[in-house]
Amino acid sequence: MVVLGGGFAGIGAARKLKDVDVDVVLVDKHDYHTFQPLLYQVATDLLPPATVGHALRDLFHEQSNARVHKATTAGIDLEKSEVRFADMEPLVYDYLVLGLGAEVNYFGVEGAAEHAFPLYTLPDAVRLKEHILERWEAADKDPSLVDDGALNVVVVGGGATGIESAGAIAELYRAIFVDDYPDIPQENARIILVEAGPEIFAMFKTSIRRYAEKALEQRGVEVLVGEIVESITPTRVSLKSGTQIPAHTLVWGAGLQANALVLSLGLDLEKGNRVVAEPDLSVTGHPEVFAVGDIAWVTDTKTKKVLPQLGSTALQSGEHAGENIARLVEGKKTEPFKYFDKGTMATIGRGAAVIQMPRGRTMKGKAAALAWGSVHLALLSTGEDRAKAVIDWTWAGFTHERPARITVRTDDT
Amino acid sequence: MVVLGGGFAGIGAARKLKDVDVDVVLVDKHDYHTFQPLLYQVATDLLPPATVGHALRDLFHEQSNARVHKATTAGIDLEKSEVRFADMEPLVYDYLVLGLGAEVNYFGVEGAAEHAFPLYTLPDAVRLKEHILERWEAADKDPSLVDDGALNVVVVGGGATGIESAGAIAELYRAIFVDDYPDIPQENARIILVEAGPEIFAMFKTSIRRYAEKALEQRGVEVLVGEIVESITPTRVSLKSGTQIPAHTLVWGAGLQANALVLSLGLDLEKGNRVVAEPDLSVTGHPEVFAVGDIAWVTDTKTKKVLPQLGSTALQSGEHAGENIARLVEGKKTEPFKYFDKGTMATIGRGAAVIQMPRGRTMKGKAAALAWGSVHLALLSTGEDRAKAVIDWTWAGFTHERPARITVRTDDT
Repeated sequence: MVVLGGGFAGIGAARKLKDVDVDVVLVDKHDYHTFQPLLYQVATDLLPPATVGHALRDLFHEQSNARVHKATTAGIDLEKSEVRFADMEPLVYDYLVLGLGAEVNYFGVEGAAEHAFPLYTLPDAVRLKEHILERWEAADKDPSLVDDGALNVVVVGGGATGIESAGAIAELYRAIFVDDYPDIPQENARIILVEAGPEIFAMFKTSIRRYAEKALEQRGVEVLVGEIVESITPTRVSLKSGTQIPAHTLVWGAGLQANALVLSLGLDLEKGNRVVAEPDLSVTGHPEVFAVGDIAWVTDTKTKKVLPQLGSTALQSGEHAGENIARLVEGKKTEPFKYFDKGTMATIGRGAAVIQMPRGRTMKGKAAALAWGSVHLALLSTGEDRAKAVIDWTWAGFTHERPARITVRTDDT
Repeated sequence: MVVLGGGFAGIGAARKLKDVDVDVVLVDKHDYHTFQPLLYQVATDLLPPATVGHALRDLFHEQSNARVHKATTAGIDLEKSEVRFADMEPLVYDYLVLGLGAEVNYFGVEGAAEHAFPLYTLPDAVRLKEHILERWEAADKDPSLVDDGALNVVVVGGGATGIESAGAIAELYRAIFVDDYPDIPQENARIILVEAGPEIFAMFKTSIRRYAEKALEQRGVEVLVGEIVESITPTRVSLKSGTQIPAHTLVWGAGLQANALVLSLGLDLEKGNRVVAEPDLSVTGHPEVFAVGDIAWVTDTKTKKVLPQLGSTALQSGEHAGENIARLVEGKKTEPFKYFDKGTMATIGRGAAVIQMPRGRTMKGKAAALAWGSVHLALLSTGEDRAKAVIDWTWAGFTHERPARITVRTDDT
């Protein structure tokens, strides 16, 4: 059987097949698994890339029926049960797990594809980090760039990605760059969060929304609600309201669509091109193919609501697909997927996190930040990743230092 | 005053001027200081780049008379006391520290500039690492590449760089890739150390040489002495003896020459274009200019021997130049440089290091490895770098794992 994608969904599916009599071939275009919830920490130098990207082969050392390949999927022939790759011989499958994830959806905003910085992959995070560092170095040498908005960042999207990114950039600026660039006044480095709806953190309760607004404000983040980005250039962001913001950096945290490969498969697609998954997560008409994670349109069998594109959805749906394949291999029937809501959490900065539990309970502030840290540490792939993240976070907490803020480019000497 | 170069030499000079009434401007083409003795560990995934490259601005937070800029030096006008940069306005200096380091010397070996992998900078190390990973991934998909020598590595140079690199690559292959690529037999992945002279580790005593040879052999490294590389292509290494080795990777650890910028200065140059330093480390005819580190030809005032291009020489000469500038600023005379030999150490692999002390004492094996670890930890820039290196080394020691073996390219999606 073939697993396409080494994210939470693909890993979850492959691991559930450890003791099943089946050959598992997992293929990803990268040689690493990405811990996506912490990408914004790579972009803002709190964590180095190797803590957030973990070698895929390493995760399957103990699983003797699994093989890992680094290759880019070029096409899938559902009738012939065959996957083609850009850089590897084709694979024929008996079972297929579609966990290829998503790509950014710019909703047609002019200039976004060329100039915006998304935060979905590890290269995205490193690119954003290098761009921010490069702009500060440039402004340090040519102060006229500061007036042109070189240090201003517009973050689009008032959901978790946008808020976590805006908060982390604010701390990088206000706690680190204030010392790194003592000659550049911080008030000339604005961070502006733009949300199209009437509120940021719309999925959270009111008390949490208020807390988040205040925490952002304390960190010098300006929040604009009810504003829609119309177009961007390398140096300007234009809003539909007519406002023009000078900013050399626009972080896009506003929307995803499924991997474009699904367009060629002739499957039922829903909003954002997501592949409709049956209750057992198989694809309509193809009981041997399972759609999981960000690529899939998964409906919660209890609440009848469509599940959000989150790590927890990906991991749980992937594991369930793996279990269903195990059932099929053993001649049993598949079972419907039940999502277990463990709550949602986000962090705005040091000691400032928010948590919303399934039954309406909430937490905020330092206690939530501690809980956030514990949960994310537990989820990191290995003890070593965990140990290093603890050091990075602890060090940043005590000293306000982020030693990863360096630019190592392989096209450099 | 201006310090060109943020290596051991430049850092040493700038720091010694902390409490002196002078404005220190340190310029490097990177935004980080490189801990060069551990570059081979980045190339072989024992340490991530951010442990070996430390943000330069971070190192001068506490030094209020210092400013750091990232810029590439384009030329120096010694008569006008002015430095020009490719990407920054010129700087005029009263005192200048020349700490621009070296570049690789291929001694005219055909194809080396195009195809060899040097190990002098952090981008060098990351490039070598990515190349090795890429070759293994490619061979995993196309086994015919294994027969073509895709996994073979030729390491040129039997000095510390060559031996440490060959040993570390051997451990990466024999302890890690053996699990990562279970379908590729290790005997098809050769590591060959080529030394032109009659012995490897020529600067060490016989007992240490024998130990090193044995340690390399135990790790499956083939040692060829008295062999000179004549030419290389992307897939073949040709020796002067007529032997041709199929190998897609050649690591160059065989020689340095001073930064090419010195050729335009009209100064006295010695072997490898190194700038001749007077006993006080100033440059002949320019008492306001000091040559330090790998760029300089420094003679030990006690032994009359020319000092090797090592980190200890760089740090000590840099610090001495800084102290001499402080003396000049305070109206005193400069003093001659005295090198303090703390011995030489190198590590061949886990629990296998060698140390040669100044008065002929030696250490080898586990005790030497422990001493090596302590010294290098003490030399790393900050407590956080030290803490993370401890984790990386300890983890690698216990589990044989190296989680940094991933390829994050910013030209990737």
